[in-house]
Amino acid sequence: MFESAELKHEIDKKSYQSIVPDLRADLLEAQYRVLEAKRFPVIVLINGFDATGRGETVNLLTTWMDPRHIVAYAFGTPNDEERARPPMWRFWRTLPPKGRIGIFFGNWYTESFNAPFPELSSNKTKKPDPALTTAEINRFERMLVNEGALLLKFWFHLSRKEQGKRLRERTENPQTRWRVGPEEWDHYEHYRECRETAERVLRETNTHEAPWMVVSAFDPRYQIVTVARALMQAMRARLDASMQPDGANAAAGMPQEAVQEAVQEEAAKTSETPSAPRLNVLNTLDLSQRIEKEDYRERLAKYQGKLAQLVRSPEFGARALAVVFEGPDAAGKGGAIRRITGTLDARNYRVVSVAAPSEEEKAQPYLWRFWRHVPPRGKVSIFDRSWYGRVLVERVEGFCTLADWQRAYSEINDFEAQMTNAGIVVVKFWLAICADEQLKRFREREQERFKRFKITAEDWRNREKWSDYEAAACEMVEHTSTDIAPWTLVEANDKYFARITVLKTLCKRLEAALAAGK
Amino acid sequence: MFESAELKHEIDKKSYQSIVPDLRADLLEAQYRVLEAKRFPVIVLINGFDATGRGETVNLLTTWMDPRHIVAYAFGTPNDEERARPPMWRFWRTLPPKGRIGIFFGNWYTESFNAPFPELSSNKTKKPDPALTTAEINRFERMLVNEGALLLKFWFHLSRKEQGKRLRERTENPQTRWRVGPEEWDHYEHYRECRETAERVLRETNTHEAPWMVVSAFDPRYQIVTVARALMQAMRARLDASMQPDGANAAAGMPQEAVQEAVQEEAAKTSETPSAPRLNVLNTLDLSQRIEKEDYRERLAKYQGKLAQLVRSPEFGARALAVVFEGPDAAGKGGAIRRITGTLDARNYRVVSVAAPSEEEKAQPYLWRFWRHVPPRGKVSIFDRSWYGRVLVERVEGFCTLADWQRAYSEINDFEAQMTNAGIVVVKFWLAICADEQLKRFREREQERFKRFKITAEDWRNREKWSDYEAAACEMVEHTSTDIAPWTLVEANDKYFARITVLKTLCKRLEAALAAGK
Repeated sequence: MFESAELKHEIDKKSYQSIVPDLRADLLEAQYRVLEAKRFPVIVLINGFDATGRGETVNLLTTWMDPRHIVAYAFGTPNDEERARPPMWRFWRTLPPKGRIGIFFGNWYTESFNAPFPELSSNKTKKPDPALTTAEINRFERMLVNEGALLLKFWFHLSRKEQGKRLRERTENPQTRWRVGPEEWDHYEHYRECRETAERVLRETNTHEAPWMVVSAFDPRYQIVTVARALMQAMRARLDASMQPDGANAAAGMPQEAVQEAVQEEAAKTSETPSAPRLNVLNTLDLSQRIEKEDYRERLAKYQGKLAQLVRSPEFGARALAVVFEGPDAAGKGGAIRRITGTLDARNYRVVSVAAPSEEEKAQPYLWRFWRHVPPRGKVSIFDRSWYGRVLVERVEGFCTLADWQRAYSEINDFEAQMTNAGIVVVKFWLAICADEQLKRFREREQERFKRFKITAEDWRNREKWSDYEAAACEMVEHTSTDIAPWTLVEANDKYFARITVLKTLCKRLEAALAAGK
Repeated sequence: MFESAELKHEIDKKSYQSIVPDLRADLLEAQYRVLEAKRFPVIVLINGFDATGRGETVNLLTTWMDPRHIVAYAFGTPNDEERARPPMWRFWRTLPPKGRIGIFFGNWYTESFNAPFPELSSNKTKKPDPALTTAEINRFERMLVNEGALLLKFWFHLSRKEQGKRLRERTENPQTRWRVGPEEWDHYEHYRECRETAERVLRETNTHEAPWMVVSAFDPRYQIVTVARALMQAMRARLDASMQPDGANAAAGMPQEAVQEAVQEEAAKTSETPSAPRLNVLNTLDLSQRIEKEDYRERLAKYQGKLAQLVRSPEFGARALAVVFEGPDAAGKGGAIRRITGTLDARNYRVVSVAAPSEEEKAQPYLWRFWRHVPPRGKVSIFDRSWYGRVLVERVEGFCTLADWQRAYSEINDFEAQMTNAGIVVVKFWLAICADEQLKRFREREQERFKRFKITAEDWRNREKWSDYEAAACEMVEHTSTDIAPWTLVEANDKYFARITVLKTLCKRLEAALAAGK
């Protein structure tokens, strides 16, 4: 979920100066429209790692809008009045009324993010409230949305390296030294655990009603512009969404969906400035990476041998393997799959080629046709395209509704969590090629007679939507690359390089899982 | 949640014979329409205590419809094929396709109901699957409904006494003896724990998308008629609900709401037969109960003294008390409240009179105005009408949408669970009077000058909707009378009797809570 936010998104000073005046005007205008309409409250949650500039962002946002109609809350350890009541009481009493904006840094997530580290708690003399379960949080947020609230959740992200740099800078500066205490260094020390916890909480609460927006905190200019644009766009979309004047009809969920769509579209543009194209997890890959034939042969033999051993080990009998291949047409999925199956015993694997659903499959819930092929213990299922079709082809081609593919992210995460809990190792590959490489391969296929069947008119049509597919793929990675089932983005312009990356990753994941399972 | 199902609902043989032919024809017709439309699958879950005739009901249902298009599944301990895959796999593979009906007895709830009794598990040699959490179940069912499924969940209920009687009968009969094993007797022995577990699981999974229908199993005729009518009505309503042909739009939730409404309306009629009016938790109260003045004075003094002591005990300092009063106009809420407050220190309690919401309150989520008055530790809040307004007056008068009050049941249960978890004792009274008694009191109020302000034109109007309010109240009790916050239905035609019942209940609940908290 943090892949995109770990890229070095930046906006240079000049672009920033050209963007900000209009953005501020738009934001202020949206705020006044919300205030005047008095139809819904705006609830903004700001969470993130230490030193990600949460306070600075909130201060700036408040300055950019009319501060009289915004209330910002920073909840620390509960006071005596709060402690005398149920934990949620203090959040309820500070909810903004319709027409107003409430910004909460420190909120009903705080204890969940701190929960695994009681010893790191900010206050050792007073016991913190017990963390809400993610199920409780989901129910609460669902209620807020059903009651008409516009709820936006931001997670500010920073790599460990960058966090350390900031903490040191702050410590060295006498004016900011007070902001860094032992707690911040503790969190830095335990960065990996903090990240894992954050990842789990975000994954479990990344619901259709209230998805997270993970924002890179690497560059403060990019950060504030991203947040301000999302907020402005969400308010606008919600104002425009048809709804009953009293907000009662929000229950149907339609305004929330329109909001999400608008915010996502805006996000795609966020750092499109004259000076720099928008970075995403795909266009930042180095597709020029390649392996020479000699080298390839040697490494292929090595990893195939290793994989053959791993799947024949006694430990694998208690586990299973599900491998997912996604990527543009002609990215080399088939070739990579054959390099895997070449090492396996035909009785122990199954390659599932996913095309349009059959009549039987259409009569069932979407995930049904993939559940059929979940590998039993000791077996391997390889999916040539997969359940991700819902958020890729079905989304882009309009084969399902907005609501359907938006809720699919959390349904897919649930599905993969169930597989993982049952001992199945889930490995997902996106084979990335550039548009030119695809064209070259299409042309080659047309030339070579035995490959001609592999290229159809539909393939040419899909090519026209290249950027739509790319945007959908980036969003897919953002929502479904989890600690339990991460995406591996494979630079696949060179087939040799791609196949070795796939085999190597597979061996590594499998080896780690079998070692952990012992 | 079991209050209504513990009444002795019955349908006599003659009425049954007059009902069944039409019901069977209607059911069969609805089944064929579903089959022909092929728009959605019907998933029926049958759960309940032992000896509640689950198998018999399913057999009869299957006979009444066309069995070729129904599949019934009884899941026991997973077999080897199932055990090799994630626990949910076996349910996925048996989901009925669109147009078909699947009846599951033994389903994704089974292990949840058994979970607290591993030693009672049906199979001691093989480990059962781990129980799904109720949050996982909710997510799975939400997905099913979003994917278009018509999901009906039945819980068959029987009192311990009746269950024991049936088990003995079955044991004595050589033909049925095999159906009663040590497991059944174990469950009977632990009836109270089984009931508590069932109550918790039902409460936590009683969602807006997929609410439970709790059915009395006391009389098999009543039971099958209730289930068949609900199923028939649900299929009809869902067929009629406007939806896109492919079922994609089910996500908006509208068909499901229409289905729930239709089923509830049908349920209200279920045992209205020529021979007997429908029993409900209110019309089965013995409103003739009364206490003489002398006796009243004595007992009033006794319980007021006790209550005074309890709220002044040191243990109460760590707890709090929330008392809810609901009931028709002129049921005696004010009088009962004064008998409580008379024993309290003015600094320690607050009476919250709930009328129409203020402008400030209207600008917030519905429950906000009640969260404001949640008592802090050591204090008492008494609510003269309460958050139940949503499912009573707002529902009956149409002040909120169908979706709003339907989701309110689980939101209210969440709210009360949060209070209970924070140590607050939640005590809820419904003061029940009959329509004649209300009329008498209205007339008295008109006569007595100092009470005249208490009766308005609106009170007379509300009276006209007596039966709507009664139906809403019964349904409210069904969905929100939980182990953690049960409803006490108070026979209130006699004010003395009502007040003593209230005080006595309050003392008992408080005493138990303080003893448990020590």
